[in-house]
Amino acid sequence: MLTNIQFVLLNTSHPGNIGASARAMKVMGLTDLALVSPKHYPSAEATARASGADDVLFNARVCDDLDTAISMSSLVFGSSSRNRGMNIPVIDVREAAAKIVSASENQRVSVLFGRESVGMSNEEMQRCHYLLRLPANPEYASLNLAPAVQVIAYEIRVAELSNDSESSQSKIHHADYADMEKMNSFYQHLFETLEKLEFLDENNKHSIQEKLRMMFNRLHPEKFEMDILRGILSRINKKIEF
Amino acid sequence: MLTNIQFVLLNTSHPGNIGASARAMKVMGLTDLALVSPKHYPSAEATARASGADDVLFNARVCDDLDTAISMSSLVFGSSSRNRGMNIPVIDVREAAAKIVSASENQRVSVLFGRESVGMSNEEMQRCHYLLRLPANPEYASLNLAPAVQVIAYEIRVAELSNDSESSQSKIHHADYADMEKMNSFYQHLFETLEKLEFLDENNKHSIQEKLRMMFNRLHPEKFEMDILRGILSRINKKIEF
Repeated sequence: MLTNIQFVLLNTSHPGNIGASARAMKVMGLTDLALVSPKHYPSAEATARASGADDVLFNARVCDDLDTAISMSSLVFGSSSRNRGMNIPVIDVREAAAKIVSASENQRVSVLFGRESVGMSNEEMQRCHYLLRLPANPEYASLNLAPAVQVIAYEIRVAELSNDSESSQSKIHHADYADMEKMNSFYQHLFETLEKLEFLDENNKHSIQEKLRMMFNRLHPEKFEMDILRGILSRINKKIEF
Repeated sequence: MLTNIQFVLLNTSHPGNIGASARAMKVMGLTDLALVSPKHYPSAEATARASGADDVLFNARVCDDLDTAISMSSLVFGSSSRNRGMNIPVIDVREAAAKIVSASENQRVSVLFGRESVGMSNEEMQRCHYLLRLPANPEYASLNLAPAVQVIAYEIRVAELSNDSESSQSKIHHADYADMEKMNSFYQHLFETLEKLEFLDENNKHSIQEKLRMMFNRLHPEKFEMDILRGILSRINKKIEF
């Protein structure tokens, strides 16, 4: 399904950013990359930064213009949060990711990433059905290219997984917890031990016992943990009886 | 509120990754960084990659060990999805971000990031109340340090913004939790007491200590609860010395 989603880098200046973007995509299961007029490419630095994602680079399409790159897509998103007065809806990345994943079930979708310095031109933006808003710090919104690719790829992967898991039944962690009978005999053992230790007196007894119950109920111990706690109590009893 | 959240980079090899992480944080409004034994630091490369986030680097605390870095935190998250059989809950980044933001309203929270190559040691993991799962591609899960910082910082920002917009009149439980310094001196007290009780022997010592740490980290005691636990330990010591 994710094979219907293409990331498009526009006129990228630094080849290292291309490599890091390829890696960021592949980590999230995306492999379809197009490069529109990259400044320096191919490049050893791009390959180095791609690390084990060099196959994504190797298969990347290099195009002279944006229209060629997106010709097979029927839905286009731009990673820019300012529509410069153009009538293009701006939506949060999370909402966009849900749209991208659901659209990719039956159509090709492109996500465009502008230049490191100046972003996207008005002509490029006009290709977009939606613009994506990344919720950056207003006082320092300097999100670099590869980190932006990373966040958007991550949201697409989360959207895809939640799509999948809504159909499959959830898996439960089968921990083997101490049941309430075991908990109660633990509390009895604990309180008796505290009596012997003369830790409880008539004034605080009730309140301390209640607090300890709340604490160990919250702990919700598994059986093997309960065995350790009981072992410690037995050991204390043996020691003080000596 | 985000000022209660600290990111901790463990033993980072490449100074460029430290700079890129500082930038990734600041873009999402996070500024509190601690570096535990970085390999090369300070470094011109770190400063260059931080770009306009050099103030985050400048204010970063450099520590010799993890316990110092997290001593004032009462809740600790590790960015690793494998708990190696330890009883530490593993949760999705999104769920974790909600917990981090809500906890940061009244306590210090740390998020740990392991080494580029080998991640976190077992001892480091044992400091964690939760581990974070990033939903990476199982066939290529090679998420680099700064992109991991970026995704987690992004989720924290989204959680914070949605928290704010929920008109923040929600009921906050003003618990006063024991910080990690208090937890560590509790563990020391507990383990010494178990030695005196001859509960630990050379064969089981390491494994029992680990299980107890996991148990009481999970309990996440408030200060008054910690006082009760410490009181019990003191009482045991007094009794067996008689």
